[in-house]
Amino acid sequence: MVTTHSASTDTVPFVLPDYLAERQARVEAALDRAIEVVYPESIYESMRYSLLAGGKRLRPILCLASCELAGGTVEMAMPTACGLEMVHTMSLIHDDLPSMDNDDYRRGHLTNHKVYGEDVAILAGDALLAYAFEHIAEQSQAVPPERLIQVMAQLGRAVGAAGLVGGQIVDLASEGTEVSLETLNFIHRHKTAALLEVSVVSGAILAGAPADTRQRLSRYAQNVGLAFQIIDDVLDLTSTPEALGKSVGKDLAAQKATYPSFWGIDESQRQAQQLVAAAKAELSAFGPLRQPLVAIADYIAARTH
Amino acid sequence: MVTTHSASTDTVPFVLPDYLAERQARVEAALDRAIEVVYPESIYESMRYSLLAGGKRLRPILCLASCELAGGTVEMAMPTACGLEMVHTMSLIHDDLPSMDNDDYRRGHLTNHKVYGEDVAILAGDALLAYAFEHIAEQSQAVPPERLIQVMAQLGRAVGAAGLVGGQIVDLASEGTEVSLETLNFIHRHKTAALLEVSVVSGAILAGAPADTRQRLSRYAQNVGLAFQIIDDVLDLTSTPEALGKSVGKDLAAQKATYPSFWGIDESQRQAQQLVAAAKAELSAFGPLRQPLVAIADYIAARTH
Repeated sequence: MVTTHSASTDTVPFVLPDYLAERQARVEAALDRAIEVVYPESIYESMRYSLLAGGKRLRPILCLASCELAGGTVEMAMPTACGLEMVHTMSLIHDDLPSMDNDDYRRGHLTNHKVYGEDVAILAGDALLAYAFEHIAEQSQAVPPERLIQVMAQLGRAVGAAGLVGGQIVDLASEGTEVSLETLNFIHRHKTAALLEVSVVSGAILAGAPADTRQRLSRYAQNVGLAFQIIDDVLDLTSTPEALGKSVGKDLAAQKATYPSFWGIDESQRQAQQLVAAAKAELSAFGPLRQPLVAIADYIAARTH
Repeated sequence: MVTTHSASTDTVPFVLPDYLAERQARVEAALDRAIEVVYPESIYESMRYSLLAGGKRLRPILCLASCELAGGTVEMAMPTACGLEMVHTMSLIHDDLPSMDNDDYRRGHLTNHKVYGEDVAILAGDALLAYAFEHIAEQSQAVPPERLIQVMAQLGRAVGAAGLVGGQIVDLASEGTEVSLETLNFIHRHKTAALLEVSVVSGAILAGAPADTRQRLSRYAQNVGLAFQIIDDVLDLTSTPEALGKSVGKDLAAQKATYPSFWGIDESQRQAQQLVAAAKAELSAFGPLRQPLVAIADYIAARTH
């Protein structure tokens, strides 16, 4: 795991905003190249509208960082990183639909169905989901095929009924009802943490990491994922639409259970800090290449939008 | 390609209804085993409701037959066969949605969203699509991983904007407008033929068939797929809801362009027969194991429901 790159991170101080900006730019460029607009244009435009609408690109960046941590390269992981963002975008497009969360705005822009209509938005989500697998299968280079099979198996699981979709189902069924902390944890472990987990673990799989590395990274991601959601709930109560780029106070209005509704804001923040500390502890066995994942965990705990 | 099985098809006369019944039963059993109902039950029940609602299982059966034709086994192809039916079911669930074709009945039963609600129906489709890839990746045995990668790349392409979704987009955009025969062909080559094509071609890939075999099977499937659609259009005009298990006359009511609207019923039937003849001609190079694919082509041309 001693590479030229790790040597350079020893000497050059690690600055997260610079790191994130550089990685975001590479991911943006790869996503932009991944989908060309051809006939029938409306579907490709609709896919690109949501895929290229900004966002932190946290999932792709985690995948790339994890692949490097485990001895792989950015090039090996970029198609999977893009596939993860396509899946994430699909879930946002479908979650925003009138029959789901019925959101008009996302990241400060009109949601996909407000621009292209509900039918095209549903199909754009379907196409992004299918294309994620196609893109990983077609574009991955210098990765043994059995690793790609593992990545696709885990990605399918993270999106489906045992992952994201299962979390969204329980979330929808819980609206307006009193839910237990256990149910709230189920929702977020599936709706948010599952895709973050596969983002990190897939990078390690692509690099051929041993099982114990994958398990450490899996626990890192689960803890970070839950912390991310707790902070999200807190921000929905404490932030402004301008800072957040989306509506706020929605959870209260929809009578959704949130972590602050169980613990209050202060204790929620404390729990998030604890999860982030546990996440970082999982990384202590690794060398300097753990720095991005450590800094991202800290960033998630401290983020204000 | 000389196997015990091909020897037996030489001596035992081939009877398509028996063959289809036996294959349907095996596919049904595999689909039934593929999805267990666990918490949160509603999503698994919704997925199973549509996946196990009957149907001809044409896509899985084509995949199995093509794999055997190319020297493989049913066991090698069954997970992919099930994945194809999951993808097909996803497309039916989403096509039936109010914002798409707005259908209340499918195969004589209430459509998924009429039973489970629009939100669950959208998510059930998403979960089936994701699970198709997971199932192929997890369950395929005795298949070299590079073949599975190819299958998943082609399946993703057949479902996405370059396949099924692209066809549906043009179909939706064409409603109530006058479309050319070229556009009608585009719709059906993508909406119907693309998934039939990957059904046949994936079987051949799994068996490790050479490129010329895959190309013959690809042309077979494209021709059969278009014939299938032409007959579908004819049946919408000439059949009854009882025989068809779904509404009839819908194309006329929706002012949808159909092959009979260009050619009339008789010429449409003649064109379908020609396509079936061309499909069968592609198979002439193969031995007795071509029998199921030949018989299925004839069956599609002659079907009345």
